[in-house]
Amino acid sequence: MQQTKTLKELAEYLGGTVRGDEACRVNGLAPLEAAGSDKVTFLANPKYASKVADTGAGAVLMAPGSESYGRNVIEVANPYLAFAKLLRLFYVQPHSPRGVMPEACIGIGVTLGEDVSIYPGVIIGDNVTLGDRCVIHPGAIIYAGVTIGDDTTIHANAVIRERCRVGNRCVIQPGAVIGSDGFGYAPDGNTYYPIPQIGIVVLEDDVEIGANTCIDRAALEATLIRRGTKLDNLVQIAHNCQIGEDCMIVSQVGISGSTRIGNHVTLAGQVGVAGHLSIGDNVIVGAQSGVPGSLPANAGYSGTPAIPHKNWLKSMAVVANLPDLRKTVATLEKRIAGLEALLQSK
Amino acid sequence: MQQTKTLKELAEYLGGTVRGDEACRVNGLAPLEAAGSDKVTFLANPKYASKVADTGAGAVLMAPGSESYGRNVIEVANPYLAFAKLLRLFYVQPHSPRGVMPEACIGIGVTLGEDVSIYPGVIIGDNVTLGDRCVIHPGAIIYAGVTIGDDTTIHANAVIRERCRVGNRCVIQPGAVIGSDGFGYAPDGNTYYPIPQIGIVVLEDDVEIGANTCIDRAALEATLIRRGTKLDNLVQIAHNCQIGEDCMIVSQVGISGSTRIGNHVTLAGQVGVAGHLSIGDNVIVGAQSGVPGSLPANAGYSGTPAIPHKNWLKSMAVVANLPDLRKTVATLEKRIAGLEALLQSK
Amino acid sequence: MQQTKTLKELAEYLGGTVRGDEACRVNGLAPLEAAGSDKVTFLANPKYASKVADTGAGAVLMAPGSESYGRNVIEVANPYLAFAKLLRLFYVQPHSPRGVMPEACIGIGVTLGEDVSIYPGVIIGDNVTLGDRCVIHPGAIIYAGVTIGDDTTIHANAVIRERCRVGNRCVIQPGAVIGSDGFGYAPDGNTYYPIPQIGIVVLEDDVEIGANTCIDRAALEATLIRRGTKLDNLVQIAHNCQIGEDCMIVSQVGISGSTRIGNHVTLAGQVGVAGHLSIGDNVIVGAQSGVPGSLPANAGYSGTPAIPHKNWLKSMAVVANLPDLRKTVATLEKRIAGLEALLQSK
Repeated sequence: MQQTKTLKELAEYLGGTVRGDEACRVNGLAPLEAAGSDKVTFLANPKYASKVADTGAGAVLMAPGSESYGRNVIEVANPYLAFAKLLRLFYVQPHSPRGVMPEACIGIGVTLGEDVSIYPGVIIGDNVTLGDRCVIHPGAIIYAGVTIGDDTTIHANAVIRERCRVGNRCVIQPGAVIGSDGFGYAPDGNTYYPIPQIGIVVLEDDVEIGANTCIDRAALEATLIRRGTKLDNLVQIAHNCQIGEDCMIVSQVGISGSTRIGNHVTLAGQVGVAGHLSIGDNVIVGAQSGVPGSLPANAGYSGTPAIPHKNWLKSMAVVANLPDLRKTVATLEKRIAGLEALLQSK
Repeated sequence: MQQTKTLKELAEYLGGTVRGDEACRVNGLAPLEAAGSDKVTFLANPKYASKVADTGAGAVLMAPGSESYGRNVIEVANPYLAFAKLLRLFYVQPHSPRGVMPEACIGIGVTLGEDVSIYPGVIIGDNVTLGDRCVIHPGAIIYAGVTIGDDTTIHANAVIRERCRVGNRCVIQPGAVIGSDGFGYAPDGNTYYPIPQIGIVVLEDDVEIGANTCIDRAALEATLIRRGTKLDNLVQIAHNCQIGEDCMIVSQVGISGSTRIGNHVTLAGQVGVAGHLSIGDNVIVGAQSGVPGSLPANAGYSGTPAIPHKNWLKSMAVVANLPDLRKTVATLEKRIAGLEALLQSK
Repeated sequence: MQQTKTLKELAEYLGGTVRGDEACRVNGLAPLEAAGSDKVTFLANPKYASKVADTGAGAVLMAPGSESYGRNVIEVANPYLAFAKLLRLFYVQPHSPRGVMPEACIGIGVTLGEDVSIYPGVIIGDNVTLGDRCVIHPGAIIYAGVTIGDDTTIHANAVIRERCRVGNRCVIQPGAVIGSDGFGYAPDGNTYYPIPQIGIVVLEDDVEIGANTCIDRAALEATLIRRGTKLDNLVQIAHNCQIGEDCMIVSQVGISGSTRIGNHVTLAGQVGVAGHLSIGDNVIVGAQSGVPGSLPANAGYSGTPAIPHKNWLKSMAVVANLPDLRKTVATLEKRIAGLEALLQSK
């Protein structure tokens, strides 16, 4: 699938500008150190600018005005983003539609868009609607009444339970579960009565869900993940949560029921968030933190219980030296006792 | 599927008493604020009692003796439980048995109860026994020799490995794994020899297992989850554990091998419990806690390592202010040095 | 499947020596307390040596030179390892090859070794290569271009994505996902552009992967798990990680992108490791620890942030008593103020 492109073509594709030989042809990407003359490389971090002098690359993606060291340059506002776009251009084959393959199993009243691919072992329940160009990989299970938008990819053995709604351009990694029953029980003396979870899950457009991640359906209405938010692997989203737009929820995070997360929030790996909280826009929570209460917007937090990140760093520095602090206090006690004795004797 | 019921019928169903118009007809449930005259609502928290005055609901589920503000009331001992039961009555359609659907695959010597539903893509190994009215959703895999009781539901792509036993009225969410090999290896010089895990997993009646939760089979005998216990999503239960009755094990909890948990224990989200411990009845462990040793019954614990919850709260308050404490100690050191110098000079 | 063996046969199988009746016949294993004369038992922990006197076992696996108390003994260097090997001998039936069962679905250009077993509901993509004696359980999905070595077992509903490579004698538990897309996005103003993850995952020989564990494919090259390493359930390995040989990665551990782990490393349950770090050989990290920086070899660490294990133990002892320490400091403050006032008045 190797194709070659001129730097002029790439600059047009990226909305950038060539400095150097526009007609130079390249066929892929490589790191600064390893790139040959048929490859494009990129400089995202100005710290490594001097490596540009030594690269053998046919061209370097750089921010406007960077020193070119005599190399061909494609100037772009965001070289890392341009690199990602060229990765897709050179290495990702567009998926050719396969249609409904014979070993798939399609229910009654199913509406399929154009150019879908439904692989063997896929089971689609009754009254499901699938948009154009959806790709449903082997073993994925779509329960009855689910709606899925255009250009969405669902990987192998993922499960989407009844009536949930998935937007356009979503990607769901293998084994993810969308719409499992929320963990809700009414105490009934010593035992527990399961509260029917009759709501759904809604994933808006451009949401991506990691492998074996679980999103529980709401008790009554909808657990909601808004446009552009990305969830990593093994994340737990409990029933009735609402996650805002363009959030990054890193692996093994758990969010308890009915919590609302703002836009552009980052929860680092293994963070736990209690239920019924409100987390403001642009909040960043450090890895493994435990969040027991709501967090105001536009700040970073860490620790269990989570406190402002800077305070946490200071507290942790003391924690590591607590035995010394205790010794210091014990010494002070003795010195004070000595002083007291001395004064009493005078 | 909308049906209407009189308040008299509902009171009989719930074992409660009507105050007001027994003949009033309703067709569903709604929150206090939103309920119209054809809906039932409920008051679980006496804090919101005054809202009853303003509700438009046809009836309110309330504890005996509550102020009715002139509304129709169904008096029940536990209004929240009654609400859950009516949710089921009004909104959950009884599952109509589908039989063994043609795209399912059934092994040799399989015993099926009456009115089962076995969906496409289900694979059932040899010598499996399934009780009456079981529902096995698409893509669920049941290995050879498994026994499953009556009225149990197994969701899509769940896996139950060889010889495990599942009780009556259990619910297993999508992607859960019952009976994976325990993590047991004998050191053999630099490398590890896998110890065969020849035991099983036993889930007693009314156990519910969350999505993508894993329960390892025992090395020799049985990993055991007793009657009525509920596990949330992404929980890890290691080999040889025994979990008591009516426990609540919240999402992302991990319990190491051979630990025994009593009855009515709650482990909040992301708790970790070490191996070979004993956790007493009615213990509550706070979210993200790490439990390195056995815990006496009838108490709450938090922190890593877990200590009594009240002590942990006090310690955490100090941790957040440790930098101040360190400064205070440094100031005291200076003041003492000053006093010592003063006294020496006298 | 019960078979009997003489002690002589077992000693030869284990590379050990019989003291006592070589012709004694046994048919299985049992604990010291429960073993009858047709069973072998073992003494791994010298603490329990005196129990040997009371066992009814036909023979005891013991280290050379141990007191036999008149029992038949099979002397072996590592009794626990010998016990594991006899468990396999007596209780694990060799898998009889089933071939490709009719309800499996095999792509184009697939190469199958000898004596494979491919169960119903397995979907194998185009151009997959499978070694001899592989067992692929129901519902496992192997994407196109995957290579799998000899004697590897893949359990139900596991997923191996395109082009990944799995070695010989690997075991992959149910629901595990190998080769999901790494969590890589290039910021694009307010939103995120997904960076194509065009690399793969490589599992070397004798690697074992737990249930519902996720290993992300590399962005460009390979996420690598070296020979003999064992991963427990619900572990997360992010893209571009390299894990050394013979590591033990316990349940619910998460390792962030591009981190390199040495050989013989143990990460206990729920540990989190940040990205782009280097963890030295023979490191042990305690349960629930958070590792924010690289760790030198041959040492134990605990805590969040992780510090040397001994220091952590000391700090935690103080944390539990922090309220007392704060009180002590408050008392000292008063005593100093008293002394200062006294001196001023003199």
